[in-house]
Amino acid sequence: MTRVLILHGPNLNRLGKREPAIYGSETLDEINQRLKKIGDQLTFSVVTKQSNFEGELITEIHEAEGNFDYIVCNPGAYTHTSYAIRDAIASVEVPVIEVHLSNIHAREEFRKQSVTAPVCVGQISGFGSYSYDLALRAIRELI
Amino acid sequence: MTRVLILHGPNLNRLGKREPAIYGSETLDEINQRLKKIGDQLTFSVVTKQSNFEGELITEIHEAEGNFDYIVCNPGAYTHTSYAIRDAIASVEVPVIEVHLSNIHAREEFRKQSVTAPVCVGQISGFGSYSYDLALRAIRELI
Amino acid sequence: MTRVLILHGPNLNRLGKREPAIYGSETLDEINQRLKKIGDQLTFSVVTKQSNFEGELITEIHEAEGNFDYIVCNPGAYTHTSYAIRDAIASVEVPVIEVHLSNIHAREEFRKQSVTAPVCVGQISGFGSYSYDLALRAIRELI
Amino acid sequence: MTRVLILHGPNLNRLGKREPAIYGSETLDEINQRLKKIGDQLTFSVVTKQSNFEGELITEIHEAEGNFDYIVCNPGAYTHTSYAIRDAIASVEVPVIEVHLSNIHAREEFRKQSVTAPVCVGQISGFGSYSYDLALRAIRELI
Amino acid sequence: MTRVLILHGPNLNRLGKREPAIYGSETLDEINQRLKKIGDQLTFSVVTKQSNFEGELITEIHEAEGNFDYIVCNPGAYTHTSYAIRDAIASVEVPVIEVHLSNIHAREEFRKQSVTAPVCVGQISGFGSYSYDLALRAIRELI
Amino acid sequence: MTRVLILHGPNLNRLGKREPAIYGSETLDEINQRLKKIGDQLTFSVVTKQSNFEGELITEIHEAEGNFDYIVCNPGAYTHTSYAIRDAIASVEVPVIEVHLSNIHAREEFRKQSVTAPVCVGQISGFGSYSYDLALRAIRELI
Amino acid sequence: MTRVLILHGPNLNRLGKREPAIYGSETLDEINQRLKKIGDQLTFSVVTKQSNFEGELITEIHEAEGNFDYIVCNPGAYTHTSYAIRDAIASVEVPVIEVHLSNIHAREEFRKQSVTAPVCVGQISGFGSYSYDLALRAIRELI
Amino acid sequence: MTRVLILHGPNLNRLGKREPAIYGSETLDEINQRLKKIGDQLTFSVVTKQSNFEGELITEIHEAEGNFDYIVCNPGAYTHTSYAIRDAIASVEVPVIEVHLSNIHAREEFRKQSVTAPVCVGQISGFGSYSYDLALRAIRELI
Amino acid sequence: MTRVLILHGPNLNRLGKREPAIYGSETLDEINQRLKKIGDQLTFSVVTKQSNFEGELITEIHEAEGNFDYIVCNPGAYTHTSYAIRDAIASVEVPVIEVHLSNIHAREEFRKQSVTAPVCVGQISGFGSYSYDLALRAIRELI
Amino acid sequence: MTRVLILHGPNLNRLGKREPAIYGSETLDEINQRLKKIGDQLTFSVVTKQSNFEGELITEIHEAEGNFDYIVCNPGAYTHTSYAIRDAIASVEVPVIEVHLSNIHAREEFRKQSVTAPVCVGQISGFGSYSYDLALRAIRELI
Amino acid sequence: MTRVLILHGPNLNRLGKREPAIYGSETLDEINQRLKKIGDQLTFSVVTKQSNFEGELITEIHEAEGNFDYIVCNPGAYTHTSYAIRDAIASVEVPVIEVHLSNIHAREEFRKQSVTAPVCVGQISGFGSYSYDLALRAIRELI
Amino acid sequence: MTRVLILHGPNLNRLGKREPAIYGSETLDEINQRLKKIGDQLTFSVVTKQSNFEGELITEIHEAEGNFDYIVCNPGAYTHTSYAIRDAIASVEVPVIEVHLSNIHAREEFRKQSVTAPVCVGQISGFGSYSYDLALRAIRELI
Repeated sequence: MTRVLILHGPNLNRLGKREPAIYGSETLDEINQRLKKIGDQLTFSVVTKQSNFEGELITEIHEAEGNFDYIVCNPGAYTHTSYAIRDAIASVEVPVIEVHLSNIHAREEFRKQSVTAPVCVGQISGFGSYSYDLALRAIRELI
Repeated sequence: MTRVLILHGPNLNRLGKREPAIYGSETLDEINQRLKKIGDQLTFSVVTKQSNFEGELITEIHEAEGNFDYIVCNPGAYTHTSYAIRDAIASVEVPVIEVHLSNIHAREEFRKQSVTAPVCVGQISGFGSYSYDLALRAIRELI
Repeated sequence: MTRVLILHGPNLNRLGKREPAIYGSETLDEINQRLKKIGDQLTFSVVTKQSNFEGELITEIHEAEGNFDYIVCNPGAYTHTSYAIRDAIASVEVPVIEVHLSNIHAREEFRKQSVTAPVCVGQISGFGSYSYDLALRAIRELI
Repeated sequence: MTRVLILHGPNLNRLGKREPAIYGSETLDEINQRLKKIGDQLTFSVVTKQSNFEGELITEIHEAEGNFDYIVCNPGAYTHTSYAIRDAIASVEVPVIEVHLSNIHAREEFRKQSVTAPVCVGQISGFGSYSYDLALRAIRELI
Repeated sequence: MTRVLILHGPNLNRLGKREPAIYGSETLDEINQRLKKIGDQLTFSVVTKQSNFEGELITEIHEAEGNFDYIVCNPGAYTHTSYAIRDAIASVEVPVIEVHLSNIHAREEFRKQSVTAPVCVGQISGFGSYSYDLALRAIRELI
Repeated sequence: MTRVLILHGPNLNRLGKREPAIYGSETLDEINQRLKKIGDQLTFSVVTKQSNFEGELITEIHEAEGNFDYIVCNPGAYTHTSYAIRDAIASVEVPVIEVHLSNIHAREEFRKQSVTAPVCVGQISGFGSYSYDLALRAIRELI
Repeated sequence: MTRVLILHGPNLNRLGKREPAIYGSETLDEINQRLKKIGDQLTFSVVTKQSNFEGELITEIHEAEGNFDYIVCNPGAYTHTSYAIRDAIASVEVPVIEVHLSNIHAREEFRKQSVTAPVCVGQISGFGSYSYDLALRAIRELI
Repeated sequence: MTRVLILHGPNLNRLGKREPAIYGSETLDEINQRLKKIGDQLTFSVVTKQSNFEGELITEIHEAEGNFDYIVCNPGAYTHTSYAIRDAIASVEVPVIEVHLSNIHAREEFRKQSVTAPVCVGQISGFGSYSYDLALRAIRELI
Repeated sequence: MTRVLILHGPNLNRLGKREPAIYGSETLDEINQRLKKIGDQLTFSVVTKQSNFEGELITEIHEAEGNFDYIVCNPGAYTHTSYAIRDAIASVEVPVIEVHLSNIHAREEFRKQSVTAPVCVGQISGFGSYSYDLALRAIRELI
Repeated sequence: MTRVLILHGPNLNRLGKREPAIYGSETLDEINQRLKKIGDQLTFSVVTKQSNFEGELITEIHEAEGNFDYIVCNPGAYTHTSYAIRDAIASVEVPVIEVHLSNIHAREEFRKQSVTAPVCVGQISGFGSYSYDLALRAIRELI
Repeated sequence: MTRVLILHGPNLNRLGKREPAIYGSETLDEINQRLKKIGDQLTFSVVTKQSNFEGELITEIHEAEGNFDYIVCNPGAYTHTSYAIRDAIASVEVPVIEVHLSNIHAREEFRKQSVTAPVCVGQISGFGSYSYDLALRAIRELI
Repeated sequence: MTRVLILHGPNLNRLGKREPAIYGSETLDEINQRLKKIGDQLTFSVVTKQSNFEGELITEIHEAEGNFDYIVCNPGAYTHTSYAIRDAIASVEVPVIEVHLSNIHAREEFRKQSVTAPVCVGQISGFGSYSYDLALRAIRELI
């Protein structure tokens, strides 16, 4: 059974309340429920976590080694500055897929650059919470 | 029935022969065959085209208006410079999904910026030819 | 009789359909009709052409040599990147006037720079399709 | 009757004496005379003013509100640096057309950027003093 | 009764000890005491918190929703890099006022840019700990 | 009695008429009246001046020496370019507080940098005309 | 027998007519004649092509695979912007030598950078049409 | 007895597992053991800590004041972005020596700049875990 | 008799009072007196003017044409931004020598660039008020 | 008889030993021998020199005036920084051809810019030591 | 016996006289004496050289091949610009350790970048002349 | 008696032969003769030296300490890159005046920046060889 860690970064606990025009009205809990169901269909065990702390995200990535086969990670705004998360991803052998709800290429200039994507398998952005679903499907293909 | 145009940009006709370490060994024909099959499963009519000409890609996008419901577009190296393709996408009401075979964020500096993505629905990059498959699934969700 | 070539660049065939808030609702055909009428009044023979292909625009500029006395050119999005069109203009003795429908200085950062304007007589931008009319009047003055 | 203010910025009082290779040999008085005549033909009342003072140009623009229907403005070298003139233009409801004698896009790098054009209707540059005439014709169209 | 959260970012717990030439000799406790007294005068309930953790500051901002009417925030050095705090501020409906003890515009180049200020009501910097007092007065006005 | 000069820069005479969405509907006269009343309460003698001329603002700052104890200055758009006003402020011993009606950090890129703030005591921006009130309160504290 | 494709980019069909001060007075036909003669001496079969279309140049490079042993390519103004031609060169196993008539390092800033040279064997620039001759001699050495 | 705090930043807990080609195969525990032994030889009391949290590193630096005479700090990837750690170092009187395992000047562009080094005594980089040993020897000299 | 205009820009009327550590304690009047005496020795008629207004400096330069043989100009802080003064200098045939009291190359970054020097004969900076004396001697040589 | 100076810059004495993957295994002596032989065939007298000193290269270029008809120069790493060698080349009437062993356009970013090429006839790079041979052939053509 | 060359770059002969606040009061001779003694303790034969000439430093590095096992190099101000010294280091197999007396990361912007460090083993900066001692200890470890 | 060293940098030995349009037709010997005569008038002992070697210029500056009271230095093209000469000037107590024959501010972009001027007393540029004369006069004033 493939074990997948879905890791949500800063402010994603605010989903559904925060700027719905950009991020949609679904809450993080609803998304997590749905992803677990999809996991069941794909015979993946799906674990979801969220943290606003850069250090906690780093630690989660470290601890995924040996416990998970894939990480689906939305590093939120840390995407654009956190070389420490980048190093964490590079330091584990678990492949990571980067996802974004909004199309980060269509927003402010600073959101166009991802410092974490270069050490990920790939990046999916712009499909709302369905970006996560696509990442799960990509994992099924990668196996 | 949902009509989807898959538009391959410059050099993609070389797939399978060109730098397989980066782009994989599948040929464009094989990819197109597979995408049509997936289209059948999803009850999409899938049409595929390829051109090395910026002007031809622009014209194809124009002509998609009224003839297609969605475009899946891999603008190849024009991704990074073609404001004319960007304008073409903005000039039609057909939503466009941008895909890339390789993880463009993990390559040369100039490949990290997409001038076309800001006018697309979203971007999927790094999953080899499976990036196209994910785009088709995304369309099923968008409908 | 003064011979004038009016050369429309990429996406201008979409006029009237494309983003009317920015570009107006007149079609390219209607504009061309009107420009020919104005040509009649000014005793100019006016020929109009449009292409989405950079290479075709270059070829048209080359072939204008000996066949036209002036070119009125709207290079569309190629304005901002095409050193090849710039070289084409520099390679002929036919003077070129650059026109833009929208005020390119009031839009995205990348639209503010024109790489073709430095080798043109002058630039007129922001008056909708009337920018072309002003270019014809400028030619009458230049003669 | 349409009331038009023609506002000449710094150093334009030197026209005819200053670098004739770039700016032509006509004096500012001669240009103003001609523009008034054209105004008569178009049934415009044309008033012309010149100042070397940024503050005076700002004040003139303020005072145009209610007294003029259009401004044709050549901000001279203030074009490239004066956010204060830009703010003045934005603070009045009188539409402004920016004109330049020389093709500013064909000169030094610093002359290519206009900080005032983004709040104007459009920009005409490179037709010598005839740039002003074209601006008057553009106004006739805009009415 | 207006509820105000005063949120101190990294290193502000060192106030009074840290570089007194720049930041003054008052301790954070003394400042907090004074701000609560001022709150009493203005009939505000003032709560103060400090954290060196970016993640904790984000969480505090989230939890302010529904519990506070205004936030006065000094993000310390995170001011210049934390898009995650910026997103947190944008994700709540509680208005935020940014304050700085020192005049950040008069120090090192990197301190001149605030990535959080664009989503705040306004910014007050350079009045020592009195910057906070001014923020409280500003809130009285904003109500 | 503390003597305070309130110095309004270019375009501020347009307040109430100019872009009310950004700057509010109060006129400069109304603001000045209110500031004088606040001055009475704080036993300050408040003098207000406005000029669109950079040179006049410089001269006013010079002449403040010996005649005023503090200057509250809103340099308007000169904030972003005038090293001459910066030098004027540095050349007098009268402390200067910089104020802005709008939150300059939340607007166009060019408005984020202040070349005058580095030689001021501090900067207050984003509270509408109440930014001036806060500056007067800051002076009471500075005394 | 070594098969060599000589590929001329945009505007090179204008040779002899275009800016002779920079590019010399020889026509492209005359150059091609001479290169074929030199080919005869070196026992190379030399084929020459010219196109103003980026897409056509890309296609020619693709089709050279298996049909030619070397390409001598002057990408004209596409040298400075065409990542698509760069990708085409990288996608074939035929080695490419880049040539320029003028010394591109001694001209405008934008002409100093070649985006195609990094995937070529080498670059020869500044010897007029003799740059091509040198490329043929280089091929003889490379064999 | 000289008290030394050795502070390891993010991802250093992964040493021995993470990219051994760059960072070596020794684990952090083994390094810490060795450093304590060297401390014994030099009559230093050596305490070692590691954290992935920027906020925790800041707090450790604050708490070093009065408890330690020197800090040897490897801020990991925070080296390149954390103005908050820089401020923490500047806020204590304990001198700090910055160390790096790899030669940061020989890696990616973003690793070449250290925002923390300007407030440290010095920087040692490139000698693997022996960089820490050299730092301890430097302390013996500094005493 | 050689006629020389000495033109002092903004803030120079503050000399002797303003930042004496940088600019010395001599007043502008004292400097002007001395320069006139030197003029007498060199049989120059020396006229001195000062203005804080960019527009007035421009006008003085215009009016120098025909009335003066040389201008010695210290544009103060306008040196670094005023393309309008630059254009004024270029518009007259009177040669201009730029002088600065302080060594502008040894101060803030923004003071190192002069936009006016490129259209002057030369620049002398760093010799206090003696920079003007050297300019007068340079004129004697230029005659 | 045509006299040619071949001038080798810094580190070229290390050829054959230094990074053979980039520069080949031939020694400088072997190259010089071969170039002299080619000189004999072309009836050139070929003199070769090498220096690691920028000043010596400058002096050699000066002394070439009158003693040599052409210089073939490989300025090594000075290519990218030495404005002094550039000035030396510009100060003599002997035409200079710049050569490089490796394709400098395909290496580190800093190697792509040549500050000396703008004052040379042309540049040949990427053909190993055969670049020098091509330069000699180019001279035969230039005569 | 390990042979170590200590190579001092430009201006280091001035040590003890030059800016003692930055570089200390010890002379280069005193440092060299001490380093030789340390060498004796470590059973290294230590040779020291100093040159102000870039070319001489390059030559010394070349000649170290075969004669020395390690180089400790302080390239002085050449650190920031000399690609030629960088190439020299890359051209020999002798490992090089870069040292600096002052903490180059805490000084002017231009001193923060080292173009030579990327081809060295590591860099030690900020410990005064003790930086050299640390380098010798590092060598003992590297053996 | 005041002892003055006049130090000429690279390529200045070419004066009179090199680009007379820029540098004049006087030879360096003629200039040196004249400067010595002026020295006699001012009771200065004037010594002149020239070198194309950066290292020699550095050494000359070092040796000026104790032997000369002032240095007049024209660092030629080293002006724009030599931090090593800058350090040499900073390392001696002899004040240095920087001179340039041409107006460096009116030439290529790279010539506008001087890295040596920040550590000199002042800079004089643009008066041909008379720039040196002005420097001697400046010394008389500085004494």
